Amino acid sequence: MQKKKITIIKVGGKIVEEKESLAGLLDRFAAIEGAKVLIHGGGRSATKIAESLDIESRMVNGRRITDEPMLQVVTMVYGGLVNKNIVAGLQARGVNALGLTGADANIIRAHKRPVGEVDFGFVGDVDYADGDMLGRLIEQGIVPIVAPLTHDGKGNLLNTNADTMAAETAKGLARLYDVTLTYCFEFPGVMRNPDEPGSLIPTIDKESYKQLLADGIVSGGMIPKIDNAFNAIDNGVSQVIITKADAIDGISGTHIVA
Amino acid sequence: MQKKKITIIKVGGKIVEEKESLAGLLDRFAAIEGAKVLIHGGGRSATKIAESLDIESRMVNGRRITDEPMLQVVTMVYGGLVNKNIVAGLQARGVNALGLTGADANIIRAHKRPVGEVDFGFVGDVDYADGDMLGRLIEQGIVPIVAPLTHDGKGNLLNTNADTMAAETAKGLARLYDVTLTYCFEFPGVMRNPDEPGSLIPTIDKESYKQLLADGIVSGGMIPKIDNAFNAIDNGVSQVIITKADAIDGISGTHIVA
Repeated sequence: MQKKKITIIKVGGKIVEEKESLAGLLDRFAAIEGAKVLIHGGGRSATKIAESLDIESRMVNGRRITDEPMLQVVTMVYGGLVNKNIVAGLQARGVNALGLTGADANIIRAHKRPVGEVDFGFVGDVDYADGDMLGRLIEQGIVPIVAPLTHDGKGNLLNTNADTMAAETAKGLARLYDVTLTYCFEFPGVMRNPDEPGSLIPTIDKESYKQLLADGIVSGGMIPKIDNAFNAIDNGVSQVIITKADAIDGISGTHIVA
Repeated sequence: MQKKKITIIKVGGKIVEEKESLAGLLDRFAAIEGAKVLIHGGGRSATKIAESLDIESRMVNGRRITDEPMLQVVTMVYGGLVNKNIVAGLQARGVNALGLTGADANIIRAHKRPVGEVDFGFVGDVDYADGDMLGRLIEQGIVPIVAPLTHDGKGNLLNTNADTMAAETAKGLARLYDVTLTYCFEFPGVMRNPDEPGSLIPTIDKESYKQLLADGIVSGGMIPKIDNAFNAIDNGVSQVIITKADAIDGISGTHIVA
Protein backbone atom coordinates (compact mmCIF):
# COMPACT_ATOMS: atom_id res chain seq x y z
CA MET A 1 0.00 0.00 0.00
CA GLN A 2 1.32 3.41 -0.89
CA LYS A 3 1.84 5.65 2.09
CA LYS A 4 0.22 9.10 2.24
CA LYS A 5 2.59 11.99 1.80
CA ILE A 6 3.38 14.29 4.71
CA THR A 7 5.45 17.48 4.73
CA ILE A 8 7.44 18.47 7.83
CA ILE A 9 8.82 22.01 7.84
CA LYS A 10 11.36 23.21 10.38
CA VAL A 11 11.81 26.97 10.68
CA GLY A 12 14.28 28.79 12.89
CA GLY A 13 13.56 31.54 15.30
CA LYS A 14 14.22 34.56 13.13
CA ILE A 15 11.47 33.78 10.62
CA VAL A 16 8.74 33.14 13.20
CA GLU A 17 9.73 35.95 15.55
CA GLU A 18 9.19 38.89 13.20
CA LYS A 19 5.64 39.78 12.28
CA GLU A 20 6.19 40.22 8.53
CA SER A 21 8.37 37.20 7.89
CA LEU A 22 6.02 35.11 10.05
CA ALA A 23 2.98 36.20 7.99
CA GLY A 24 4.73 35.22 4.75
CA LEU A 25 5.78 31.88 6.17
CA LEU A 26 2.28 31.10 7.44
CA ASP A 27 0.83 31.96 4.01
CA ARG A 28 3.24 29.55 2.33
CA PHE A 29 2.78 26.87 4.98
CA ALA A 30 -1.02 27.14 4.71
CA ALA A 31 -0.72 26.61 0.93
CA ILE A 32 1.04 23.24 1.30
CA GLU A 33 -1.40 20.50 0.37
CA GLY A 34 -2.08 17.41 2.43
CA ALA A 35 -0.84 16.40 5.88
CA LYS A 36 1.82 18.62 7.40
CA VAL A 37 3.72 19.49 10.56
CA LEU A 38 5.56 22.68 11.52
CA ILE A 39 8.47 22.66 13.96
CA HIS A 40 9.75 26.03 15.12
CA GLY A 41 12.52 27.65 17.13
CA GLY A 42 12.38 30.87 19.11
CA GLY A 43 15.87 31.54 20.47
CA ARG A 44 15.97 35.24 19.70
CA SER A 45 12.73 35.93 21.57
CA ALA A 46 13.94 33.81 24.48
CA THR A 47 17.15 35.84 24.68
CA LYS A 48 15.16 39.08 24.52
CA ILE A 49 12.64 38.09 27.20
CA ALA A 50 15.43 36.67 29.39
CA GLU A 51 17.26 39.99 29.07
CA SER A 52 14.13 41.91 30.12
CA LEU A 53 13.87 39.57 33.14
CA ASP A 54 17.56 40.12 34.00
CA ILE A 55 18.37 36.50 33.23
CA GLU A 56 21.66 36.00 31.43
CA SER A 57 21.74 33.92 28.23
CA ARG A 58 24.81 31.69 28.17
CA MET A 59 25.57 29.75 25.00
CA VAL A 60 28.14 26.98 24.46
CA ASN A 61 28.68 25.79 20.85
CA GLY A 62 25.49 27.58 19.86
CA ARG A 63 23.48 25.72 22.50
CA ARG A 64 21.73 27.47 25.36
CA ILE A 65 22.70 26.64 28.94
CA THR A 66 19.30 26.08 30.54
CA ASP A 67 19.20 26.53 34.30
CA GLU A 68 15.84 26.69 36.09
CA PRO A 69 15.11 30.40 35.43
CA MET A 70 16.06 29.94 31.77
CA LEU A 71 13.85 26.84 31.54
CA GLN A 72 10.95 29.02 32.69
CA VAL A 73 11.79 31.55 29.98
CA VAL A 74 11.97 29.01 27.15
CA THR A 75 8.80 27.32 28.41
CA MET A 76 7.01 30.68 28.24
CA VAL A 77 8.49 31.78 24.95
CA TYR A 78 8.62 28.54 22.93
CA GLY A 79 5.54 26.82 24.38
CA GLY A 80 3.49 30.00 24.83
CA LEU A 81 4.39 33.15 22.93
CA VAL A 82 5.85 31.77 19.69
CA ASN A 83 3.80 28.58 19.48
CA LYS A 84 0.39 30.10 20.18
CA ASN A 85 0.91 33.02 17.82
CA ILE A 86 1.69 30.57 15.04
CA VAL A 87 -1.37 28.50 15.96
CA ALA A 88 -3.70 31.52 15.96
CA GLY A 89 -2.15 32.78 12.70
CA LEU A 90 -2.69 29.44 10.98
CA GLN A 91 -6.25 29.11 12.30
CA ALA A 92 -6.94 32.47 10.64
CA ARG A 93 -5.67 30.88 7.40
CA GLY A 94 -8.00 27.89 7.67
CA VAL A 95 -5.35 25.47 8.96
CA ASN A 96 -6.48 23.42 11.95
CA ALA A 97 -3.24 23.97 13.87
CA LEU A 98 -2.63 22.49 17.32
CA GLY A 99 0.44 23.52 19.31
CA LEU A 100 2.46 20.85 21.05
CA THR A 101 5.58 20.43 23.10
CA GLY A 102 7.05 16.96 23.43
CA ALA A 103 5.23 16.66 26.78
CA ASP A 104 1.79 17.12 25.20
CA ALA A 105 0.24 13.71 24.56
CA ASN A 106 3.76 12.46 25.33
CA ILE A 107 4.71 12.89 21.67
CA ILE A 108 8.47 13.37 22.17
CA ARG A 109 10.23 11.80 25.13
CA ALA A 110 13.78 12.78 26.06
CA HIS A 111 16.28 12.54 28.89
CA LYS A 112 18.31 15.29 30.51
CA ARG A 113 21.67 15.51 28.79
CA PRO A 114 24.33 13.95 31.06
CA VAL A 115 26.80 16.46 32.47
CA GLY A 116 30.06 16.21 30.52
CA GLU A 117 32.59 18.99 30.02
CA VAL A 118 29.60 21.31 30.01
CA ASP A 119 26.49 21.16 32.20
CA PHE A 120 23.77 22.27 29.82
CA GLY A 121 21.15 22.03 32.58
CA PHE A 122 17.58 21.26 31.52
CA VAL A 123 18.47 20.30 27.96
CA GLY A 124 16.95 17.19 26.42
CA ASP A 125 18.42 14.50 24.21
CA VAL A 126 15.52 12.88 22.38
CA ASP A 127 14.69 9.21 23.02
CA TYR A 128 11.81 8.87 20.56
CA ALA A 129 8.84 10.58 18.94
CA ASP A 130 5.47 8.81 19.12
CA GLY A 131 4.55 8.66 15.44
CA ASP A 132 1.38 6.69 16.20
CA MET A 133 -0.10 9.39 18.44
CA LEU A 134 0.96 12.13 16.02
CA GLY A 135 -0.59 10.09 13.22
CA ARG A 136 -3.89 9.80 15.10
CA LEU A 137 -3.98 13.59 15.59
CA ILE A 138 -3.11 14.18 11.94
CA GLU A 139 -5.88 11.79 10.82
CA GLN A 140 -8.33 14.10 12.66
CA GLY A 141 -7.30 16.86 10.25
CA ILE A 142 -5.03 18.42 12.86
CA VAL A 143 -1.78 20.14 11.87
CA PRO A 144 0.75 19.80 14.73
CA ILE A 145 2.85 22.89 15.50
CA VAL A 146 5.77 21.67 17.57
CA ALA A 147 7.75 23.86 20.01
CA PRO A 148 11.36 22.89 20.85
CA LEU A 149 10.61 21.48 24.31
CA THR A 150 10.47 17.84 25.38
CA HIS A 151 10.00 16.13 28.75
CA ASP A 152 11.60 13.30 30.66
CA GLY A 153 8.44 11.60 31.91
CA LYS A 154 9.39 12.56 35.47
CA GLY A 155 7.77 15.98 35.36
CA ASN A 156 10.66 17.94 33.88
CA LEU A 157 10.38 19.95 30.69
CA LEU A 158 13.61 20.00 28.68
CA ASN A 159 14.89 22.58 26.21
CA THR A 160 15.58 20.67 23.00
CA ASN A 161 17.25 21.45 19.70
CA ALA A 162 14.55 22.09 17.08
CA ASP A 163 16.58 20.53 14.23
CA THR A 164 16.86 17.30 16.20
CA MET A 165 13.17 17.37 17.09
CA ALA A 166 12.34 17.76 13.40
CA ALA A 167 14.50 14.76 12.47
CA GLU A 168 13.01 12.64 15.28
CA THR A 169 9.46 13.65 14.37
CA ALA A 170 10.16 12.74 10.75
CA LYS A 171 11.58 9.36 11.84
CA GLY A 172 8.59 8.73 14.09
CA LEU A 173 6.16 9.42 11.24
CA ALA A 174 8.12 7.48 8.58
CA ARG A 175 6.47 4.15 9.41
CA LEU A 176 3.05 5.62 8.59
CA TYR A 177 3.82 8.29 5.98
CA ASP A 178 5.97 9.10 2.97
CA VAL A 179 7.85 11.92 4.73
CA THR A 180 9.53 14.96 3.24
CA LEU A 181 11.43 16.93 5.88
CA THR A 182 12.42 20.48 4.96
CA TYR A 183 14.91 22.50 7.00
CA CYS A 184 14.67 26.24 6.40
CA PHE A 185 17.65 28.47 6.88
CA GLU A 186 19.00 31.77 5.57
CA PHE A 187 20.41 30.47 2.24
CA PRO A 188 18.65 28.84 -0.74
CA GLY A 189 20.39 25.57 0.16
CA VAL A 190 23.89 24.25 0.88
CA MET A 191 26.18 26.55 -1.12
CA ARG A 192 29.69 25.91 -2.45
CA ASN A 193 30.14 29.65 -1.97
CA PRO A 194 27.51 31.59 0.01
CA ASP A 195 28.33 34.69 -2.04
CA GLU A 196 27.49 32.98 -5.34
CA PRO A 197 23.77 32.26 -5.77
CA GLY A 198 24.60 29.86 -8.61
CA SER A 199 26.74 27.64 -6.38
CA LEU A 200 23.85 25.78 -4.73
CA ILE A 201 24.53 22.06 -4.39
CA PRO A 202 21.36 20.34 -5.68
CA THR A 203 22.00 16.91 -4.11
CA ILE A 204 24.15 15.54 -1.30
CA ASP A 205 24.58 11.82 -0.68
CA LYS A 206 26.87 10.19 1.85
CA GLU A 207 29.78 9.97 -0.60
CA SER A 208 29.63 13.59 -1.69
CA TYR A 209 29.09 14.69 1.94
CA LYS A 210 32.47 13.18 2.91
CA GLN A 211 34.13 15.19 0.15
CA LEU A 212 32.30 18.40 1.09
CA LEU A 213 33.47 17.95 4.69
CA ALA A 214 37.05 17.24 3.59
CA ASP A 215 37.03 20.34 1.39
CA GLY A 216 35.65 22.49 4.23
CA ILE A 217 32.62 23.47 2.13
CA VAL A 218 30.30 22.08 4.80
CA SER A 219 31.35 23.30 8.23
CA GLY A 220 30.10 24.75 11.53
CA GLY A 221 26.38 24.67 12.24
CA MET A 222 25.65 23.01 8.90
CA ILE A 223 27.31 19.76 10.03
CA PRO A 224 24.78 18.80 12.74
CA LYS A 225 21.95 19.81 10.36
CA ILE A 226 23.17 17.43 7.64
CA ASP A 227 23.94 14.73 10.24
CA ASN A 228 20.32 15.06 11.41
CA ALA A 229 19.21 14.80 7.79
CA PHE A 230 21.13 11.55 7.19
CA ASN A 231 19.86 10.18 10.50
CA ALA A 232 16.32 10.79 9.22
CA ILE A 233 17.06 9.27 5.79
CA ASP A 234 18.63 6.19 7.42
CA ASN A 235 15.42 5.74 9.41
CA GLY A 236 12.86 5.68 6.65
CA VAL A 237 12.34 9.37 5.82
CA SER A 238 11.94 9.68 2.03
CA GLN A 239 13.75 12.96 1.52
CA VAL A 240 15.28 15.85 3.40
CA ILE A 241 15.56 19.29 1.83
CA ILE A 242 17.59 22.26 3.04
CA THR A 243 16.25 25.53 1.67
CA LYS A 244 15.18 29.10 2.33
CA ALA A 245 11.91 29.74 4.18
CA ASP A 246 10.48 31.48 1.11
CA ALA A 247 11.00 28.35 -1.04
CA ILE A 248 9.27 25.53 0.82
CA ASP A 249 7.84 24.06 -2.38
CA GLY A 250 9.38 20.60 -1.95
CA ILE A 251 11.59 21.20 -5.00
CA SER A 252 13.91 24.15 -4.35
CA GLY A 253 17.02 23.72 -2.24
CA THR A 254 19.56 21.01 -1.53
CA HIS A 255 18.18 17.48 -1.40
CA ILE A 256 19.85 15.09 1.03
CA VAL A 257 19.52 11.54 -0.28
CA ALA A 258 20.62 8.07 0.83
CA MET B 1 -27.81 4.98 25.16
CA GLN B 2 -26.24 6.04 28.41
CA LYS B 3 -23.56 8.67 27.98
CA LYS B 4 -20.07 8.13 29.34
CA LYS B 5 -19.19 10.21 32.38
CA ILE B 6 -16.66 13.02 32.13
CA THR B 7 -15.24 15.19 34.92
CA ILE B 8 -14.26 18.78 34.23
CA ILE B 9 -12.22 20.49 36.94
CA LYS B 10 -11.55 24.22 36.99
CA VAL B 11 -8.78 25.41 39.30
CA GLY B 12 -7.71 28.96 39.92
CA GLY B 13 -4.27 30.40 39.67
CA LYS B 14 -3.14 30.09 43.26
CA ILE B 15 -3.39 26.30 43.38
CA VAL B 16 -1.48 25.67 40.15
CA GLU B 17 1.12 28.37 40.68
CA GLU B 18 2.72 27.06 43.86
CA LYS B 19 4.82 23.93 43.59
CA GLU B 20 3.39 22.12 46.61
CA SER B 21 -0.29 22.84 46.10
CA LEU B 22 0.15 22.01 42.40
CA ALA B 23 1.67 18.60 43.23
CA GLY B 24 -1.24 17.78 45.52
CA LEU B 25 -3.80 18.86 42.94
CA LEU B 26 -2.13 16.83 40.18
CA ASP B 27 -2.11 13.74 42.45
CA ARG B 28 -5.83 14.11 43.08
CA PHE B 29 -6.62 14.94 39.45
CA ALA B 30 -4.62 11.90 38.27
CA ALA B 31 -6.69 9.72 40.64
CA ILE B 32 -10.01 10.70 39.02
CA GLU B 33 -11.26 7.78 36.98
CA GLY B 34 -12.49 7.99 33.41
CA ALA B 35 -12.48 10.87 30.95
CA LYS B 36 -11.50 14.25 32.36
CA VAL B 37 -10.51 17.81 31.51
CA LEU B 38 -8.60 20.38 33.57
CA ILE B 39 -9.08 24.12 33.08
CA HIS B 40 -6.67 26.40 34.87
CA GLY B 41 -5.99 30.05 35.66
CA GLY B 42 -2.66 31.73 36.22
CA GLY B 43 -3.32 35.35 37.10
CA ARG B 44 -0.86 35.61 39.95
CA SER B 45 2.05 34.41 37.80
CA ALA B 46 0.98 36.75 35.00
CA THR B 47 1.02 39.69 37.40
CA LYS B 48 4.44 38.64 38.71
CA ILE B 49 6.02 38.19 35.27
CA ALA B 50 4.41 41.42 34.04
CA GLU B 51 5.92 43.22 37.02
CA SER B 52 9.38 41.81 36.23
CA LEU B 53 8.94 43.06 32.66
CA ASP B 54 7.85 46.52 33.90
CA ILE B 55 4.35 46.02 32.51
CA GLU B 56 1.61 47.36 34.74
CA SER B 57 -1.31 45.08 35.67
CA ARG B 58 -4.58 47.01 35.58
CA MET B 59 -7.74 45.29 36.83
CA VAL B 60 -11.36 46.44 36.53
CA ASN B 61 -13.99 44.43 38.45
CA GLY B 62 -11.42 41.70 38.95
CA ARG B 63 -10.78 41.45 35.20
CA ARG B 64 -7.42 42.17 33.65
CA ILE B 65 -7.10 44.96 31.08
CA THR B 66 -5.19 43.23 28.29
CA ASP B 67 -3.30 45.56 25.98
CA GLU B 68 -0.77 44.12 23.52
CA PRO B 69 2.17 43.81 25.95
CA MET B 70 -0.14 42.19 28.54
CA LEU B 71 -1.49 39.81 25.89
CA GLN B 72 2.09 38.68 25.29
CA VAL B 73 2.51 38.10 29.03
CA VAL B 74 -0.65 36.04 29.44
CA THR B 75 0.14 34.08 26.28
CA MET B 76 3.54 33.21 27.75
CA VAL B 77 2.31 32.51 31.25
CA TYR B 78 -1.05 30.78 30.66
CA GLY B 79 -0.24 29.01 27.38
CA GLY B 80 3.40 28.27 28.21
CA LEU B 81 4.60 28.36 31.80
CA VAL B 82 1.52 27.24 33.74
CA ASN B 83 -0.01 24.96 31.10
CA LYS B 84 3.16 23.06 30.17
CA ASN B 85 4.19 22.52 33.79
CA ILE B 86 0.79 20.96 34.48
CA VAL B 87 1.10 18.81 31.34
CA ALA B 88 4.59 17.56 32.27
CA GLY B 89 3.48 16.96 35.87
CA LEU B 90 0.49 14.90 34.76
CA GLN B 91 2.54 12.92 32.23
CA ALA B 92 4.81 11.97 35.17
CA ARG B 93 1.65 10.65 36.88
CA GLY B 94 0.62 8.51 33.93
CA VAL B 95 -2.04 10.91 32.63
CA ASN B 96 -1.83 11.54 28.89
CA ALA B 97 -2.27 15.30 29.24
CA LEU B 98 -2.33 17.63 26.24
CA GLY B 99 -2.25 21.40 26.74
CA LEU B 100 -4.63 23.55 24.73
CA THR B 101 -5.68 27.13 24.33
CA GLY B 102 -8.94 27.85 22.56
CA ALA B 103 -6.93 28.46 19.38
CA ASP B 104 -5.48 24.94 19.36
CA ALA B 105 -7.58 22.76 17.07
CA ASN B 106 -10.01 25.70 17.19
CA ILE B 107 -11.60 24.25 20.32
CA ILE B 108 -12.91 27.52 21.79
CA ARG B 109 -13.81 30.42 19.53
CA ALA B 110 -14.46 33.90 20.92
CA HIS B 111 -14.75 37.51 19.86
CA LYS B 112 -13.01 40.54 21.24
CA ARG B 113 -15.19 42.12 23.91
CA PRO B 114 -16.80 45.29 22.49
CA VAL B 115 -15.54 48.50 24.06
CA GLY B 116 -18.11 49.78 26.55
CA GLU B 117 -17.47 51.89 29.61
CA VAL B 118 -14.20 49.99 29.86
CA ASP B 119 -11.88 48.92 27.03
CA PHE B 120 -10.64 45.55 28.23
CA GLY B 121 -8.40 45.20 25.17
CA PHE B 122 -7.65 41.69 23.98
CA VAL B 123 -10.26 40.00 26.15
CA GLY B 124 -12.49 37.34 24.67
CA ASP B 125 -16.21 36.62 25.09
CA VAL B 126 -16.73 32.98 24.17
CA ASP B 127 -18.88 32.08 21.14
CA TYR B 128 -18.68 28.29 21.45
CA ALA B 129 -16.54 25.33 22.41
CA ASP B 130 -16.15 22.55 19.84
CA GLY B 131 -17.27 19.54 21.86
CA ASP B 132 -16.90 17.21 18.86
CA MET B 133 -13.20 17.94 18.40
CA LEU B 134 -12.60 17.76 22.16
CA GLY B 135 -14.49 14.47 22.19
CA ARG B 136 -12.32 13.04 19.42
CA LEU B 137 -9.18 13.95 21.38
CA ILE B 138 -10.62 12.48 24.57
CA GLU B 139 -11.52 9.24 22.74
CA GLN B 140 -7.79 8.90 21.93
CA GLY B 141 -7.13 8.70 25.66
CA ILE B 142 -6.04 12.33 25.77
CA VAL B 143 -6.75 14.51 28.82
CA PRO B 144 -7.12 18.15 27.69
CA ILE B 145 -5.50 20.79 29.91
CA VAL B 146 -7.05 24.10 28.92
CA ALA B 147 -5.38 27.51 29.42
CA PRO B 148 -7.59 30.62 29.70
CA LEU B 149 -6.91 31.93 26.19
CA THR B 150 -9.19 31.83 23.17
CA HIS B 151 -8.93 33.23 19.64
CA ASP B 152 -11.12 35.14 17.23
CA GLY B 153 -10.32 33.19 14.06
CA LYS B 154 -8.65 36.28 12.63
CA GLY B 155 -5.24 35.58 14.17
CA ASN B 156 -5.80 37.23 17.55
CA LEU B 157 -5.41 35.41 20.83
CA LEU B 158 -7.78 36.65 23.53
CA ASN B 159 -7.42 36.58 27.30
CA THR B 160 -10.54 34.80 28.58
CA ASN B 161 -12.10 34.17 31.96
CA ALA B 162 -11.32 30.62 33.04
CA ASP B 163 -14.68 30.12 34.83
CA THR B 164 -16.49 30.99 31.62
CA MET B 165 -14.23 28.71 29.58
CA ALA B 166 -15.01 25.87 31.99
CA ALA B 167 -18.77 26.41 31.64
CA GLU B 168 -18.52 26.64 27.83
CA THR B 169 -16.34 23.52 27.64
CA ALA B 170 -18.84 21.67 29.83
CA LYS B 171 -21.70 22.82 27.57
CA GLY B 172 -19.77 21.80 24.45
CA LEU B 173 -19.19 18.31 25.83
CA ALA B 174 -22.72 17.82 27.23
CA ARG B 175 -24.12 16.47 23.95
CA LEU B 176 -21.61 13.61 24.04
CA TYR B 177 -20.99 13.06 27.77
CA ASP B 178 -22.65 12.99 31.16
CA VAL B 179 -20.73 16.03 32.46
CA THR B 180 -19.83 16.94 36.02
CA LEU B 181 -18.21 20.37 36.21
CA THR B 182 -16.34 21.19 39.41
CA TYR B 183 -15.24 24.71 40.28
CA CYS B 184 -12.47 24.80 42.88
CA PHE B 185 -12.05 27.79 45.15
CA GLU B 186 -10.73 28.60 48.61
CA PHE B 187 -13.75 27.40 50.62
CA PRO B 188 -15.31 23.92 50.93
CA GLY B 189 -18.35 25.22 49.01
CA VAL B 190 -20.81 28.09 49.13
CA MET B 191 -20.99 29.03 52.83
CA ARG B 192 -23.76 30.75 54.75
CA ASN B 193 -20.94 32.09 56.91
CA PRO B 194 -17.35 31.64 55.69
CA ASP B 195 -16.15 31.54 59.32
CA GLU B 196 -18.38 28.56 60.15
CA PRO B 197 -17.25 25.34 58.49
CA GLY B 198 -20.64 23.79 59.30
CA SER B 199 -22.53 26.40 57.29
CA LEU B 200 -21.84 24.88 53.85
CA ILE B 201 -24.91 24.96 51.60
CA PRO B 202 -25.16 21.43 50.14
CA THR B 203 -27.47 22.29 47.22
CA ILE B 204 -28.50 25.42 45.36
CA ASP B 205 -31.31 25.48 42.82
CA LYS B 206 -32.71 28.52 41.04
CA GLU B 207 -35.30 29.16 43.71
CA SER B 208 -32.89 29.02 46.63
CA TYR B 209 -30.33 31.05 44.62
CA LYS B 210 -32.78 33.95 44.39
CA GLN B 211 -33.18 33.88 48.15
CA LEU B 212 -29.42 33.63 48.77
CA LEU B 213 -28.90 36.66 46.52
CA ALA B 214 -31.67 38.59 48.27
CA ASP B 215 -30.16 37.77 51.66
CA GLY B 216 -26.69 38.84 50.49
CA ILE B 217 -25.27 35.41 51.31
CA VAL B 218 -24.10 35.03 47.70
CA SER B 219 -22.28 38.18 46.56
CA GLY B 220 -19.25 39.53 44.73
CA GLY B 221 -17.16 37.09 42.71
CA MET B 222 -19.43 34.19 43.65
CA ILE B 223 -22.29 35.59 41.55
CA PRO B 224 -20.67 35.15 38.09
CA LYS B 225 -19.45 31.70 39.21
CA ILE B 226 -22.97 30.53 40.05
CA ASP B 227 -24.38 32.25 36.95
CA ASN B 228 -21.85 30.26 34.91
CA ALA B 229 -22.95 27.13 36.75
CA PHE B 230 -26.65 27.65 35.93
CA ASN B 231 -25.74 28.49 32.32
CA ALA B 232 -24.02 25.09 32.14
CA ILE B 233 -26.92 23.28 33.81
CA ASP B 234 -29.43 24.94 31.46
CA ASN B 235 -27.38 23.63 28.53
CA GLY B 236 -27.25 19.95 29.33
CA VAL B 237 -24.50 19.70 31.98
CA SER B 238 -25.57 17.10 34.57
CA GLN B 239 -24.18 18.74 37.67
CA VAL B 240 -21.95 21.59 38.77
CA ILE B 241 -20.08 21.44 42.07
CA ILE B 242 -18.33 24.27 43.90
CA THR B 243 -15.71 22.97 46.31
CA LYS B 244 -12.16 23.20 47.60
CA ALA B 245 -9.29 21.95 45.44
CA ASP B 246 -8.46 19.27 48.01
CA ALA B 247 -11.97 17.80 47.76
CA ILE B 248 -12.54 17.11 44.04
CA ASP B 249 -14.22 13.78 44.73
CA GLY B 250 -17.46 14.61 42.94
CA ILE B 251 -19.33 14.51 46.27
CA SER B 252 -17.98 17.22 48.58
CA GLY B 253 -19.04 20.82 48.16
CA THR B 254 -22.09 22.74 47.02
CA HIS B 255 -24.07 21.14 44.20
CA ILE B 256 -25.77 23.50 41.76
CA VAL B 257 -28.84 21.80 40.33
CA ALA B 258 -31.60 22.67 37.88
